[in-house]
Parts: sequence; structure tokens; C-alpha cells
Amino acid sequence: MIGVFDSGLGGLTVVKELLERVNQYKILYFGDTARTPYGTKSAETVTRYAIENTNFLLERGAKIIVVACHTVSSTAIPVLKSHFKGVPFFEVVTPSFRKALSLTKNKKVGLIGTRTTVSSGIYQRLFAEADPEISLSTNPAPLLVPLIEEGWLRKPETRSIVKKYLIPLKMKGIDTLILACTHYPILKKIISEKAGKRIKLVDPSEEVAHEVAHFIANNVEIQKCLESNGEPEIWVSDLTPNFESIAQMFLKRKVKLNKVIW
Amino acid sequence: MIGVFDSGLGGLTVVKELLERVNQYKILYFGDTARTPYGTKSAETVTRYAIENTNFLLERGAKIIVVACHTVSSTAIPVLKSHFKGVPFFEVVTPSFRKALSLTKNKKVGLIGTRTTVSSGIYQRLFAEADPEISLSTNPAPLLVPLIEEGWLRKPETRSIVKKYLIPLKMKGIDTLILACTHYPILKKIISEKAGKRIKLVDPSEEVAHEVAHFIANNVEIQKCLESNGEPEIWVSDLTPNFESIAQMFLKRKVKLNKVIW
Repeated sequence: MIGVFDSGLGGLTVVKELLERVNQYKILYFGDTARTPYGTKSAETVTRYAIENTNFLLERGAKIIVVACHTVSSTAIPVLKSHFKGVPFFEVVTPSFRKALSLTKNKKVGLIGTRTTVSSGIYQRLFAEADPEISLSTNPAPLLVPLIEEGWLRKPETRSIVKKYLIPLKMKGIDTLILACTHYPILKKIISEKAGKRIKLVDPSEEVAHEVAHFIANNVEIQKCLESNGEPEIWVSDLTPNFESIAQMFLKRKVKLNKVIW
Repeated sequence: MIGVFDSGLGGLTVVKELLERVNQYKILYFGDTARTPYGTKSAETVTRYAIENTNFLLERGAKIIVVACHTVSSTAIPVLKSHFKGVPFFEVVTPSFRKALSLTKNKKVGLIGTRTTVSSGIYQRLFAEADPEISLSTNPAPLLVPLIEEGWLRKPETRSIVKKYLIPLKMKGIDTLILACTHYPILKKIISEKAGKRIKLVDPSEEVAHEVAHFIANNVEIQKCLESNGEPEIWVSDLTPNFESIAQMFLKRKVKLNKVIW
């Protein structure tokens, strides 16, 4: 199985992209809804949670781990890799960075994400190593997650808040914008409208799914280990009446959630 | 010590009110910042967290437990009382209900709170038992917590969102509004402005602090057990650079946060 985890249900945007590319293999998803969100929490706490989530997926038979959460991808990957030696990990930061690197013409890249992702400084390091001429401008956009989870996708307040978050980045003249949080693709239309035609968007869900598909296609050993087909199996650490409709918003199809008993 | 806990830092509004009334006794606070918020989580998960938080406070010497969290007060009190027999518990729902009951003239009461608080139905039950003629109108207002935690206290988007949440309650003709979440008193000015002069606000922090002060004043045994004075001791389950300024916003004074090592 392909294991995917996120702090909550936002990572289902990654499952949606995976289903479009590798739907011959079974996907196992874990959303840590009992402790969500991660983006306002410390790197230390986020790392502890990420280890527990990975353990859950491996115990249930995952052979590949896809970290759909940008906050975990920014802060916990080295620890995860050393803790779970030999397990192939995929995360959303590196492919998003690569895509932005290939897209930018004027070498001015922008990024919106959670506070913890932005303050991790990981994108700054990646761009500085790849091309010191690239200037990266970042702005934490913490209100977008609650607005999306409330389903306020077309309200004037959401449009106004998106605009506020983008103004400082537009003033820097960026031509590429990384949506560094699994939730943000849901607001792609408004973000794209407020960013303007000249700014290209990087959607991490698409990039990581592309990378996973490529890895599997070129790895016969892994292909043999992966269970084939079946509906994605979705687990959460907490379940409220509200969650199935949120999950459906991300996955764009009806979905059954299973609650983990700790 | 007087133990106080909340899902995060919002419960410091209760500590502030306690300091104004019983500052001769030491206060021990626990904010579960590693798992905050509670208001979007299930009653089952919230109850499990509440038991762990109470254990922490009792182990560190608390003799009274004040549940500053509205979500816990709405869902977990019977379990807490049966789990920790003999421990005096105070919660924010009952005193807020009593205050609203005494304030309303036209018997039309409104309430804003988290989803879990609103769907618990506890206020509906209390009012129905006390006076079946009272009609209670509720509206979940889940975006207010993130807006407050972001410090967006005077932004036009916040004003507009507050207005949206109040419209259906005003249309019901309420004359009293319960602010059923520890965070909301921070927005009291905007809420009061948008509610209009004819609606009186009930602030749970003031009501529970008043009740605790009254209990202690009339209970010599408890007075002997409580450690006197000293600065409030504030513990959190997660710590980020952002938290001390959020804590200061609620407590209206500089504050040192201690992180629990689980």
C-alpha cells in the first residue's frame, strides 16, 4: 500500500492527485484530526506526531510513505528518514521547490504557508543552494486553513484575506508562487485571480504525486510489494459529523472515514 | 493551588479574572497547546484530553479545578466528576447560563461558540429546565478563535465575520448574548458594537471567576489547602515563539510559559 499522512484532511488533495496517476495501487491515508492543525505548533511536537503517524501506516502495511503535510515536510524529514531506515519517504517540499525553480523567469519566487513551514527556512536553503540569485519572499497565511475547513470558499472575507496575504509578495514582483500547504489548492481559483495572470502557481499535491508515480514506475521491487487497487482506505484519529463533508471537498468524491482507536 | 486548564491560551482570560478576585492564592494553569483547538474535535476526544489535563494539574498540587474551556465544560464535566471523585470542579457553562437567565427580559437568548459547544445542546437543556418559555438561538462561530490567535482584533475582515455570525441571532430578537468560548471576550468591543446597545453580553470568564471566589470565601478547609500568592504558574504542552505574545494578549501582562515534557 501507498501510505499517505497529513495533520488533518487537507492531505486528501494529494490522494486525489495520486488516484489520477497510480490508481492501480491501494492507498492508505491517515489524517491526525485529533491533533490538527500542525502549522501553529513547534517543530519538536510536529516531529513527534510525524513519527507516530508513520508507525501507524507501516503497521498497517504501507511500503512507501508520502508526507502530504507541508509543516512535517519542512521540519521532520531528516528525523523520519533516520528513524525509519530503508523506508522510501516522499515529501511535498522538494518537488515544489524544483517546480518553482523551473518555472521562474525573473528569479523572484513567492511562498505562502503555515507559520511553522515559513519559519523552518527550508525553502530559503534549497533556493540558496540551487541558485543564489533567486530571491524568495514568504508570507505566513494561517487564516486560510480555518477558512477552507469552514467551507468559506467564495465568501468576500476569504477573497479579502487572500488579497491581504498576497500584497507583500506581489510588491516584490514575484512571477511564481508556491502554495506551501496542502489545503491551499482548494482556493486555487481565488489565489490565482488575486495573484494575477503573470504569477504562476505551484501546487505541491500535483508535484509530489508526479514524483511518487515516477518512482513506482521505475521500481519493480516496490511494484511487487504494493497491494493492487481497491478504494483508498482512510483513517482519522478523531471523527466529528463535519469531517466527511470536509473530506469530500478535498477528495472530490464520497468517502468513508474510519476512526483509529488508540 | 487553584488549577485552571484550557485547550490553549484562551483560558488565561479566566486567570485574569481570578487574579482580580482571589489573588491571595496561587494559580496553576495548563494550556494544551500541542492539541489545540478542541472546539472542532469530538466530545469523546475532548473528554480524553480533559482527563489528562486534570491529572496534570492534580499531580502538581491543584486542589480546585477550573475548566476554562467552553468545549470541555459542555461535554466532559459528568465524566470528570465521576473520574475524579471529591475534587471540586468549576466550569464555565453553568454560571454563564445563570447570568443569561437573570439578564434576559424578553426571554430571547443568543449564543455563539465552537461547533462542539453548540452541538452539545447543554445550554438548550439548562434553559428548558429553568424556564421553558426562554428561546435560545445559537450560531457556531468557529473562525473567531483563529482570527483572535492571529491578533486580527481590529481588521475589517474580523468586523465583517463577527457581523455575519450575529445576523441570524439578531433576527431572532435576542436581548442577551452568551460568548460561549474563552477567546471571545477579547473581541468584546466589536461584538458589542455589532450586536447593538440593546443586547447585553455574558462573559463566562467573569462569571466562573466570581463563582470560584465565592466558593473559596465560604470554604475554610479549602482556604487552608491553597498555597498563597506568588505569580501564576503557566504550563503548556507545546511552545512556539508566537505563544508568549498570544498569552500576553489574554492575560494583559507579561508572562513566562513553561513547557511540559511528556
